[in-house]
Amino acid sequence: MGRWQPNAQQRLEEAAMELFGERGYDHTTVEEIAAQAGLTERTFFRYFKDKREVLFSRSKDLEKLMVDAVVGAPATAPPLHAVASALEATSALFEKRRAHARKRQALIVAHAELQERELIKLAGLASAVAESLCQRGVERAASSLIAEAGIAIFKSAFERWVRGGKHDLAHHIRAVLGELRLATAEIGARSMAPHPARRRPPKL
Amino acid sequence: MGRWQPNAQQRLEEAAMELFGERGYDHTTVEEIAAQAGLTERTFFRYFKDKREVLFSRSKDLEKLMVDAVVGAPATAPPLHAVASALEATSALFEKRRAHARKRQALIVAHAELQERELIKLAGLASAVAESLCQRGVERAASSLIAEAGIAIFKSAFERWVRGGKHDLAHHIRAVLGELRLATAEIGARSMAPHPARRRPPKL
Repeated sequence: MGRWQPNAQQRLEEAAMELFGERGYDHTTVEEIAAQAGLTERTFFRYFKDKREVLFSRSKDLEKLMVDAVVGAPATAPPLHAVASALEATSALFEKRRAHARKRQALIVAHAELQERELIKLAGLASAVAESLCQRGVERAASSLIAEAGIAIFKSAFERWVRGGKHDLAHHIRAVLGELRLATAEIGARSMAPHPARRRPPKL
Repeated sequence: MGRWQPNAQQRLEEAAMELFGERGYDHTTVEEIAAQAGLTERTFFRYFKDKREVLFSRSKDLEKLMVDAVVGAPATAPPLHAVASALEATSALFEKRRAHARKRQALIVAHAELQERELIKLAGLASAVAESLCQRGVERAASSLIAEAGIAIFKSAFERWVRGGKHDLAHHIRAVLGELRLATAEIGARSMAPHPARRRPPKL
């Protein structure tokens, strides 16, 4: 125990998932995770600030991947195109870990404290994406909207992908974006009207 | 101190905002808020589960207003139309409390623990809106997407409104929705392609 291991982080993550699955998230301690991985508690805290974080260690990789893709999108790409391409760019990353993603998602849905951490990570991702749109010359308010819309698309696509089926995440991202386009087009003219007429007829 | 007051909740909220403004959120205790309102700490905890919650007591009213508006929208209204109408229906509620909303927003932006609570409230709002779309017969995956898109629209519109200017929140909601429509239309055809061709030309 305790000797340096080059793949300590991954071993801790795998040990955590295994124990969360066997004993439940609430009944697993950091000490037990470390022991299962053949490492010490001290090593655990070198990689993760708390028990929750062991499920979120990849969120910085995801953020970097997305920011690089937004910044690297062709200069002529419209902002939402740049964000959609960035979302699709994450697909390969997730595809390799679908079984893991499904188990992880089940844990998050079942634990309020994990949902909380997930929401904060997604808000951080939205900020980072908005910032990278600003760097592309998009005005701040528009950047913020497109980034938030991107996260909404990602959340919906991810929910569908993680449930199963033959399609990859990129497919679901394109499908969700298509649905959003149709949904906004349906009420398009109305939303731009500066002096909208009465829009809600009486209930039948 | 301590005698029953019909408007205790509002007095506590006003006292809290006053003290947060004077001393800062971190340096204000529940005891001080109660004393400032001429009430006891026990009364405070009858209305709010913790210090944070004093800034979020209206979130259930907001949720009820939105859910009622979605459920009550004409049967023929497309889902995003129903949600947009519900968002606009909240405008009057906020308009009365713009100065308060601005102060509250500044506090939230400055404190991670308040951002956390805000994100959870918004996620709860998204779930409630998705649920009310399901009640209208919208399929679950589509409901979830439209609700998330609605929250993205709300967040962006709220940010713009709270910053100031002559327009009400409803105006910003319509403007943001219009921008989202244009943004999705720009990449429309692409997003529906089942076998997209190479979409990212090499960087210049």
